[in-house]
Amino acid sequence: MAKEIGITVRKEENFSEWYAQVVLKSGIADYFAVKGTIALKPYGYAIWEMVKKRFDLMLRRTGHRNVYFPTLIPEKLLAKEAEHFKGFVPEVFWVTRAGDRELGEELALRPTSETIVYALYSKWIKSWRDLPVLYNMWNSVFRAEIKATKPLVRNSEFLWQEGHTVHESEEDAEREVRRILRLYRRLAEEYLAIPVLEGRKSEREKFKGAVYTMTLEAMMPDGKAIQVATSHNLGQNFSIPFEVRFLGRDGKEHYAWTTSWGFSWRMIGAMIMIHGDDKGLKLPPRIAPIQCIIVPISYSKREREEVLKKARKVLRMLSKARLRAELDEREEYTPGWKFNDWELKGVPLRIEVGPRDVREGCVVMVRRDTGRKEKVPDGEVVGRAKELLSDIQREMLRRAREMLRRMTRSADSYEEFKGLIKEGGFVKAGWCGSEECEVKIKEETGADIRLLTDEKAKTCVYCGRPAKALAYFARAY
Amino acid sequence: MAKEIGITVRKEENFSEWYAQVVLKSGIADYFAVKGTIALKPYGYAIWEMVKKRFDLMLRRTGHRNVYFPTLIPEKLLAKEAEHFKGFVPEVFWVTRAGDRELGEELALRPTSETIVYALYSKWIKSWRDLPVLYNMWNSVFRAEIKATKPLVRNSEFLWQEGHTVHESEEDAEREVRRILRLYRRLAEEYLAIPVLEGRKSEREKFKGAVYTMTLEAMMPDGKAIQVATSHNLGQNFSIPFEVRFLGRDGKEHYAWTTSWGFSWRMIGAMIMIHGDDKGLKLPPRIAPIQCIIVPISYSKREREEVLKKARKVLRMLSKARLRAELDEREEYTPGWKFNDWELKGVPLRIEVGPRDVREGCVVMVRRDTGRKEKVPDGEVVGRAKELLSDIQREMLRRAREMLRRMTRSADSYEEFKGLIKEGGFVKAGWCGSEECEVKIKEETGADIRLLTDEKAKTCVYCGRPAKALAYFARAY
Repeated sequence: MAKEIGITVRKEENFSEWYAQVVLKSGIADYFAVKGTIALKPYGYAIWEMVKKRFDLMLRRTGHRNVYFPTLIPEKLLAKEAEHFKGFVPEVFWVTRAGDRELGEELALRPTSETIVYALYSKWIKSWRDLPVLYNMWNSVFRAEIKATKPLVRNSEFLWQEGHTVHESEEDAEREVRRILRLYRRLAEEYLAIPVLEGRKSEREKFKGAVYTMTLEAMMPDGKAIQVATSHNLGQNFSIPFEVRFLGRDGKEHYAWTTSWGFSWRMIGAMIMIHGDDKGLKLPPRIAPIQCIIVPISYSKREREEVLKKARKVLRMLSKARLRAELDEREEYTPGWKFNDWELKGVPLRIEVGPRDVREGCVVMVRRDTGRKEKVPDGEVVGRAKELLSDIQREMLRRAREMLRRMTRSADSYEEFKGLIKEGGFVKAGWCGSEECEVKIKEETGADIRLLTDEKAKTCVYCGRPAKALAYFARAY
Repeated sequence: MAKEIGITVRKEENFSEWYAQVVLKSGIADYFAVKGTIALKPYGYAIWEMVKKRFDLMLRRTGHRNVYFPTLIPEKLLAKEAEHFKGFVPEVFWVTRAGDRELGEELALRPTSETIVYALYSKWIKSWRDLPVLYNMWNSVFRAEIKATKPLVRNSEFLWQEGHTVHESEEDAEREVRRILRLYRRLAEEYLAIPVLEGRKSEREKFKGAVYTMTLEAMMPDGKAIQVATSHNLGQNFSIPFEVRFLGRDGKEHYAWTTSWGFSWRMIGAMIMIHGDDKGLKLPPRIAPIQCIIVPISYSKREREEVLKKARKVLRMLSKARLRAELDEREEYTPGWKFNDWELKGVPLRIEVGPRDVREGCVVMVRRDTGRKEKVPDGEVVGRAKELLSDIQREMLRRAREMLRRMTRSADSYEEFKGLIKEGGFVKAGWCGSEECEVKIKEETGADIRLLTDEKAKTCVYCGRPAKALAYFARAY
């Protein structure tokens, strides 16, 4: 493969450039003319569809239903919950004109849909019999990014899912927040092989308008954290200004308790960062659009025919067993070129079929994660492919867990803390609970509180006062 | 069912109000605060997902692949194809501000994505080996409606699918336009039970920027036509300004040949109009989210238990046979209320299970389309449900075809023409091909040319000169 087609920088040497090359060259996405926006190409969209399908299935089982709410929000409506408005307004895109008519009221492109949703919920919900409302949306949202953008990780428009639920009681809302966090964790760990830490956001870092925010955080190989998904308990913060009220079982009117939660294509960005290598992408088998790529190898026309015949048979067997397999029949490329191409695209398992394999009644299987090769007799192709795929899935998560463990350390003094933050990774330290210390630490080290845990800590790493919580600090995307 | 819950006007008496009530009361959609925008509620979105799934499967089989392109288009880019820009600019929403920063260049919300797509295709396509490019997108688009809006039929934001393909030759593009039109026809007729007429749009009515537009048109019971889907041959109209070029098999550079095509949730609007009745929706079984609703009927606690036991067994059998069935176990409503509710929601088949049915070893099936009831022995439940559903599907299309035939008439003179247009429906008449006559007819009768056919005609119904084509005229949504 020509140098300019493959990845030309090493992941360890220039992580940022390596990431951009992997995203562009593997066919996941491309930049568009509007700053911070990208197009998802077929391969990238196929990965998103795999992730979406998995999570959609989980939501269906828990009784959630999909809906679609419109994109444009009147300014008055967006401003109804003051803290929410203040938090989002710096990055809102405003529509001020339609055709050549100036609009009487400016319209915001949804940065998130709480305000649209609650405006309608207040019409739809009358009685406790209408609850819970468990709705979800797959859409795109808009946040004008001023900071450096990065495909899938920080974009001015991104694809995501946003859930908006309404409950009779505070406890029900509380349970929903936790239940969704568990689903996100399953999605991240069991499907995308992204190990995550779980905890609560600080007041400063929580969703603007929430009572509190629960978060899943992952660690990238360059030492920076990524927020993978969040689940917010909104209490009655939205139901009161939007008048989402219901007639309770007690015959009285109550304000409802609500939650919202979301994850975006950023999760795919995190997966690429964690698992990719100098050859390109590495996809976990459970979300790989192509799990097995069959590459025929032949040197003459006669060989070509018998090799292709066998390769097609292997394809049929794998497809029948519901593995996502493809056969690369392209004639204009050499097998070596194809190997590189499919490695770049991160297909978990390569199956080679050559003339010798035809004679010997076997195929060669090559794992993308370890590069390990093995001969597999024809009769065992399906069984062995399944075994290898589930082993690859498990191994990818295991290795990522090891990395996360290695990159999570504790600091007892602020000096130690600063050194560890500089090296990268999560740093566990006590925190007194004051925003003052939180801001100082951010200014002096670039690190945020990524999450708060219930674990005990003695003193605040910054001011030395008694600690209210053990926090995980890190610099982040 | 209380009057205010059910439909309170007759379809024949006030079609427009009837339609609005069906859409709102059956749980399909609701109006939102921004003029012309609506929210799709779970039931409406479930129908859209059924339609989407069907068409997506067709596209997968023909080798099309899904992608996502961003929403915001720089003004310069939108203006690159002059006729296209002129056609769309009166209804474009413009983003002029992000946060408190005025944008240097205004950004359009996509009214359709040709300009975004071709800006990127020109980067991606180098050689004939990259062709054909067969990409499709599921997204929403924005067109600021000045005219009266109507849920699903005319909205300022709507869900749709847009395909954008690139080909080596004019013939390949031509074939693609026809192939897609056939898929749309299958979707409309075989799934949504909407019979359609097929033909070409006049120059005046074609997609702005296309060489020509092929269309599918359906007739509504109030005598107005609806455009159900269109497929455009764009020739090289976009590839030239956007420089979508490729190295041909002949070693020379060529401009590519492109097509685009789309259908929206409007197709669901047409289906509602054609099939609904005074009781509400009537859904064709192949796209009904719920095909069979099981309603238990009991008068005592003991009866309730045995009836529910049997009803659950029926549910299991139907689900196992992959029918989309649900059991309405709600205790707070009477069976009569439930009958009305599920009729309003258009569920094709109701299955009643009462104490007598338990004793006699049967159930009662009631068709939504005809209201016909029949007893079905327990052992035949699955088989008979399948038969009835496929009969309902066939009958719905047959009846709609009859209506279309009845509402398609010919006019030999302009006097006759005007009378027929007033009565509603399609009117076939000769047309000389001049835009002048087309505009005069529109001004004097309100009717457009909905499509042009290859059928012969003698003289223009307006000017009497020799006819160039036989046209189907109608007033339209």
